[in-house]
Amino acid sequence: MSRLIDELRKLPGIGTKSAQRLAFHILRSSDADARALADAILVLREKLRLCSICNNITDVDPCGYCSSAVRDQHIVCVVEEPTNIATIEKTRSYNGVYHVLHGTLSPIGGVGPEQLRIANLLTRLTPAAMPDLDSILAPAPDDNRTIREIILATSPTTEGEATAAYLAVEIRRIVPTLRVTRIATGVPAGSDIEYADEVTMTRAMEGRRDF
Amino acid sequence: MSRLIDELRKLPGIGTKSAQRLAFHILRSSDADARALADAILVLREKLRLCSICNNITDVDPCGYCSSAVRDQHIVCVVEEPTNIATIEKTRSYNGVYHVLHGTLSPIGGVGPEQLRIANLLTRLTPAAMPDLDSILAPAPDDNRTIREIILATSPTTEGEATAAYLAVEIRRIVPTLRVTRIATGVPAGSDIEYADEVTMTRAMEGRRDF
Repeated sequence: MSRLIDELRKLPGIGTKSAQRLAFHILRSSDADARALADAILVLREKLRLCSICNNITDVDPCGYCSSAVRDQHIVCVVEEPTNIATIEKTRSYNGVYHVLHGTLSPIGGVGPEQLRIANLLTRLTPAAMPDLDSILAPAPDDNRTIREIILATSPTTEGEATAAYLAVEIRRIVPTLRVTRIATGVPAGSDIEYADEVTMTRAMEGRRDF
Repeated sequence: MSRLIDELRKLPGIGTKSAQRLAFHILRSSDADARALADAILVLREKLRLCSICNNITDVDPCGYCSSAVRDQHIVCVVEEPTNIATIEKTRSYNGVYHVLHGTLSPIGGVGPEQLRIANLLTRLTPAAMPDLDSILAPAPDDNRTIREIILATSPTTEGEATAAYLAVEIRRIVPTLRVTRIATGVPAGSDIEYADEVTMTRAMEGRRDF
């Protein structure tokens, strides 16, 4: 019993009291329920992996986005973390696919390009070099997976900007004509410009668009 | 003495204690100092007015921006309040002039286009209709005050967006070819996209720019 409590306490947001409550619940539940929970944990852990195309966390490889026939496989949105995909999906305005870097460049933190999942982003630019996935992938609408646009959606932080700048150079080195875009930095929706800091306001002015 | 304390207490951020302290200070100060303070208040109040061109608060008409020979008189940045000018000036990246609306459209609050300083913005679009200011205004570098761009820098709030949309229509009605731009809405600089709300993230994606 105390072993289970100790294990449960390792979960985020679960203290000793919660762990005890959960452990007692499991103790009182049926044999089948306890086994189903344990099994689900094992199966998840065993099955979870990174998508070999986009590095998103997935239980099938390639992931649901990369194998989707309804999503636009020509636009790739590059994000820092798998959780960023949820942020962008919530907008319900993006129908392309993703590429997860699993971090940002951080010379101080010892994170260089090799520590990020950049290599297989660059591979995606030249489909001929891609592993033979035709058998498992649903064909794109026009049976062509050539990338037409890379959206760099790293955060507008120092590290995020540096990462975006690095990627833009590397991408252009491989496909000089590819459209590479950066998400807009500016005053957040619903906010008064009075509260905008100088850098944000500068970017909002520089990034102004024809109305 | 109590009359001065009462008057001082009407100032923002000044309570009874502060008002007493200020009043005692004035009591102890020299005759000349007291008179200088009183004079400064009267002169400021008497002299302060709205710039007849841009509606900024000023003690000379036209204001320093509108009469400046070094600022670009061809670009007008439309803001809600005089304080917004300081926000934009702090960026040190804008060298055009301004137009202060003194509010935003708010049907619920009973603020229609007539309550805002829109009329003299539209007048500015057709310099021939402007009052004869040539004698007081420093000549623009190319001796020509034709507006080439209007930047709508109202806040990305419901009222600010409605005001910008209204102005764009009105401006185009008078000069259909004039460049009308809107400041960028997006993820604020230094912020993680994880904290961006859905509307901001949608606008950041839609407003992406070529890198």
